[in-house]
This record gives sequence, C-alpha cells and structure tokens, in this order.
Amino acid sequence: MRKRFIVTIVCLSVFLGSYAQELANFRRAPIISPEIGEKTVIFRMTAPQAKLVRLYGSWMRSNDSSANMVKDTSGVWTISINKPAAEIYTYNFIVDGLNLNDANNVFVQRDGVRYLSVLLVPGDVTANYFEAGKRGNLRKVWYDSPTIGKNRRMYVYTPYGYETGNESYPVLYLLHGGGGDEDAWSTMGRACQILDNLIEKKLAVPMICVMPNGNPGQVAAKTLLLAETTYDRTDPKFTNLYINSIVKDIIPYVEKNFRAVPKPEARAVAGLSMGGGHTMSVTNEYPGTFAYICPLSMGIRDNQPDIDAKLQGIKKAGYKLYWIGCGSEDFTFAGAKLLDAALTRNGLEHTFNISGGGHTWANWRVYLNTFGKLLFK
Amino acid sequence: MRKRFIVTIVCLSVFLGSYAQELANFRRAPIISPEIGEKTVIFRMTAPQAKLVRLYGSWMRSNDSSANMVKDTSGVWTISINKPAAEIYTYNFIVDGLNLNDANNVFVQRDGVRYLSVLLVPGDVTANYFEAGKRGNLRKVWYDSPTIGKNRRMYVYTPYGYETGNESYPVLYLLHGGGGDEDAWSTMGRACQILDNLIEKKLAVPMICVMPNGNPGQVAAKTLLLAETTYDRTDPKFTNLYINSIVKDIIPYVEKNFRAVPKPEARAVAGLSMGGGHTMSVTNEYPGTFAYICPLSMGIRDNQPDIDAKLQGIKKAGYKLYWIGCGSEDFTFAGAKLLDAALTRNGLEHTFNISGGGHTWANWRVYLNTFGKLLFK
Repeated sequence: MRKRFIVTIVCLSVFLGSYAQELANFRRAPIISPEIGEKTVIFRMTAPQAKLVRLYGSWMRSNDSSANMVKDTSGVWTISINKPAAEIYTYNFIVDGLNLNDANNVFVQRDGVRYLSVLLVPGDVTANYFEAGKRGNLRKVWYDSPTIGKNRRMYVYTPYGYETGNESYPVLYLLHGGGGDEDAWSTMGRACQILDNLIEKKLAVPMICVMPNGNPGQVAAKTLLLAETTYDRTDPKFTNLYINSIVKDIIPYVEKNFRAVPKPEARAVAGLSMGGGHTMSVTNEYPGTFAYICPLSMGIRDNQPDIDAKLQGIKKAGYKLYWIGCGSEDFTFAGAKLLDAALTRNGLEHTFNISGGGHTWANWRVYLNTFGKLLFK
Repeated sequence: MRKRFIVTIVCLSVFLGSYAQELANFRRAPIISPEIGEKTVIFRMTAPQAKLVRLYGSWMRSNDSSANMVKDTSGVWTISINKPAAEIYTYNFIVDGLNLNDANNVFVQRDGVRYLSVLLVPGDVTANYFEAGKRGNLRKVWYDSPTIGKNRRMYVYTPYGYETGNESYPVLYLLHGGGGDEDAWSTMGRACQILDNLIEKKLAVPMICVMPNGNPGQVAAKTLLLAETTYDRTDPKFTNLYINSIVKDIIPYVEKNFRAVPKPEARAVAGLSMGGGHTMSVTNEYPGTFAYICPLSMGIRDNQPDIDAKLQGIKKAGYKLYWIGCGSEDFTFAGAKLLDAALTRNGLEHTFNISGGGHTWANWRVYLNTFGKLLFK
C-alpha cells in the first residue's frame, strides 16, 4: 500500500513535471547543438523562414569568417566544422543579419551585459575547466564596505573539505577586468573548476579564492537591478576607493568570517586588465600585504616617474612571487614589457610569462591554471 | 608622486577596461529596453533587415496576442505598451517568425534549458522581489548523497547576520518542479529576495533555506555539463530515491554543517508541482520530521487508497502547519481539492489557499511570500 501510494504520487508528479516541461518546449524541435564529435562539431538551428544563416565562432579570425549553414526540408540549418583546438569558445548564429544565441545549448555565459553561447572543446588545455571529482563550494557573500560606503557583494570559493575540517587556508584575491563584475572569474574564468582540479591533482595547495566586484559604483552585478553610483573617474578619491576597500574592508571581512591565514605570505592578488591595474595599485600602495602578486594583461606606462620607488617598496617589504602574464598579441603587451623592465631594473625577482594570443579569457584561464600552482609554496 | 602614480595606473586601467567593453559592444546600438515608465513600458530591438518584428510577453493571453513593433529609419523596432500589473514577466521578440531575447536587457532567467528576458514591473505584489536592504548569503554547496550514490549540488540561503552571530536557525527545504533544478527557486522564484524582505520587515523569522536538486538522475543543473543517470521512473527504487535522500542525506548535512535547529518544529518543507509531490511524499513517508508542510500546485488522485492512513500518520506524529497553495486555473486544482478534502476528512487542521491563475511562478512567488510569514511561529 505504502509503495503504491508513493508510486502514484510520484508518477503524478513526474507526469505533471513532464507536462510543464513539454509546454515549455513545444515550440522547439528536439535538436542537438552543438554536437561535439571526434573530429567535427555540428551546429544546428531552426529557422524555417530565414534566407541566410551563418555561424560565427570565436575560433574564427573575425566576423567576416562566419560560415554559411545549410537548410534541410524541416527548416533546420546545419553546419559541420572541423573541431577547433581544445578551448572554451563563444559563438552565435547570424540569421539574415541578426545575431542569435543557440537555443539548444544550455551552456551560456554572461560577459558584462551580453549572454553568449559557449562551446567547450575537450583536450589537454581544457582538462581543468570541467568539473573535478572533489569540488569546493561557492558563496555569494554580502559585506560592508565603509570605504566605498556600500554593502557590496563578492563571491568566495572555499576548497573541498573546508566545511568538514578545521584548518586555515591561504587566500587568493582574484580581480576581474573592465566590463566584468564579481561573477566573471567563476563563469568565464572557470576559476572554481581550475582550482578544484589543481587542488585535487595536488598541483596547488588548497586555498580560498575571493572574487570581489571591482566597479566601486556598483553594489553588485547589474543582473541584480541595484542602483549604481556615478563617479568622476579622474577624481583621485575614486581612484583609491576600490583598492583601499580591498585592504580595509574585504581582507578584514574574509579573515574574520573564513578560516583564512591572516598573514602576507598567505595572501595572493591577481587580476586581468583593469584588475591587473588594481593588482599593481594595491601592491604598490600597500607593500607587504600580499606576498604573491600576479598582474595579467596589464602593464605600466612609459613615463611613470615613481614606479621605481614603488617597486623598491615592495622589494623592501618582501614578497614571494611577482608573476606577469601577457599575450604577445595583447594591446597591453608593451606596458607589460615596461613593467618587466622596471622589475628587472629594480632587482625584483619575477616571472614574465609571455603567451601567444591577446586580451582574452583563453589566456586568463591558462594563466590562473599556471600561477595557481606557484602560490603559497 | 604617490597619487600621481595611482592616478596614472588607474586611468590606464579604466581606459583599457573601457576599451575592452567597447570592443565587446561595438556591434550593438546603445538603446534602452525595456524602459519602464509611469504608465507604459517601451521595448526596443535593432533589426534593420527584418520585415516583421513582434513582441510577445507572458502578460499576454497567448502567442497569438503578440503585438507588432514599428521600425524607425535607423533599423530600431519599438513598441510602447500599457504597463501591465506589477509582476515578473518574461518576454521575447519574434523577428520574421524567430524567437529572440532582448539583447539590451541584462535581466535574464533560465527556465530549465531556456533563457528568458525578464520584465520586473514594480508595485505592491513585487515589492519583496527586489533586493532588500539587509541581504542573506547564498551558497552553492556540494554534499554526499549515499542514498542516490552521487556527490550532488544544492543551494543554501543563510539569513542576514548568520555569519556574525551565534544563534541557530530553523530551516525551510524548498523544492522545485519538473524541468527545474537547484537554481530555480533562487532565480525565477526570487526566494532570497522574498526571504530577505520578509525577515527585514519582521514578517518572517530568520531562517535558513535549502534548495536541493529534485532530479535524482542529475548531479547538478545541466549548465555544469555533468553526465546524467537515466532511471526507470516506474521503478519504486527510483520513486524513493530523492525523498529518502532529503531525510537521510540532506537534512543531516545541513544540521551538521550549518547552525540549524535539529528539531521537527524547526523544519519546513515546501515545493511546487513535482516538488509539491515530493513535499507530500516526504511528509507521508517520514511523518514527524517536518512540522510545516506546504505543497504548492499539487494534489492527490481520486483513488489513493492509503491517503487516510498517511494523513493519520502525520496527525499522530504532530505538525504545526499544513498549507496548500493552488490557483483556480491550475491543472492540478482538482487534485489539490481532493487533498483538501482528505485533510478535512481526517481531521487535520490546514489552510487551503486558493488563488487565481494557474501553474505559474507568479503564483509560487506569492505563495512563498505568504506561507513564509507563517513558518516557525
């Protein structure tokens, strides 16, 4: 009797659930896209009335490289391409001149205000971008920032075992770039997966990773619909706001509310583009706070008169790692070379990791996957 | 000197950040959509080559009610509609027969495998759907489920003040419906905002809210690209899997890893549709575990022979609240009326909250906003 009742209820539930799902899907054909094969990737899109459907993917050189798709009798457009090298790509369809995401692909990322269909091609480069076996947790945390005058949101990754253990961990402060927010590193950056995998493979030490919002005008990502403050960005007060808040608000919050080791040698800071600038600023202004310093896709200007004094400050305070990552095609490469030269000139041991490619998440993921192994050792 | 250096670095950062953002946006016109006015909402979409662009919103009766938009000389299609009643709606554009989201609206929700543009119209009904002043945190948590044989993901909301205080809290287990996953209640359901607002206004007691994944074949939401298990859904073993895992795996994890009061009177379970079935099953099978029982948009069948015995079991074990929520247009309404009758027949005090409308998130949000005030009092 008991079993029969449960079966009935659950069958009813499943039926009604399926019904709702079918209601939701009835306009969409049950097609698979993208279909990743051994040597090809097939994309499909339903557009019976369209005259011309093209595919553009970030593995192509430019929008002009987009490729024609072919329509079958059911109105489904298809294209099979040679599988690009292992990487995370974004792509879209161009339907009679209009950009569309892939309605059949649930893997979507937000880049600032845009939502992008994602293609993850498996291989060596992307091995750590998939879910590991042992996974850390991710918290969306609200904290007070008296420095900025707002209650703000950040993401905090805690490694596998954090909840069940007692030990304290070092902390990586991981900063996003312009147009990004606290969501960027854990989505486009695959930070949780990369750290999970590195830690599981014993290539990195278990660490906490803090991903704040680097736009002091924002309380949180725009998706939360909260009002934003406009700052005069040339005002020095604005300039200092965020980097001061990292040291005065964020670090104390993290070291109070998490089992974080409250020592410079247990603090790393890394960031890309604007976040690379933040990384340099916060370590220049607060030497001795972070022992691990990793600016990515960012550098200095030719005529920065006090760079030597700042770097001497870091040298004097002591540090364990200064690791620059930049692509040879990155528009910040010249600045990164100047930073490299300034570090050399001032006698600061450092690594200048020059990769191919430009100002892209493909590079930033690889950089995290690389310097992540060097932290706190 | 110090200031000048920071200004330089940060200006450079901002410049490069802006540059990246502009690169990202250069193909999109700077148009605002949706623009919510006092009496109207204006939608805009760029589609210079399109012949016919229509707007469909969930406030309309059906897809046939979609309304024509008008193109201006710059290729932007516009429509101004009378502002619908306060609610969260989804909408899309229909461009020459093709459904498109609003590329200018960053507010997007995922419903199963579909991404939907969202319109949030302010008003009394939606007052608690916006961010509160004091906000709780949300954790994406991995836990072991020996019952299901998987390490699985769930979301756990902790109320404002949880991190800084010492007290223990009651727990609401909040279950999603068919086609949903652990993400559904915190996105479409606005559960964090509703609880934040109710708690801030002292209409609800501070509580933890646990949102598990109700599909035992899944490790986590499909967005994580993890392999799924296929079950024979008519197999009683499958039937019991998830509800057993709630009691045997999830509750112990929560009461071990969070400051949760480990007592029946500090446990509530609520769920919609399939999750309403789960709510009934888990309380029927484990009477006395949850003192607060809230099935939403779900009921029983006409010929369920052991329902009386089950409800007598709940009555005997004791409970504080049995709260049914259902819309008069919901296809589960007949079943909900049968449940209401069965509770009455068996002498179980309960509330049958009959609303207008059907099987919709509009109703489920209102239900949470209603029964949330009654829990743990």
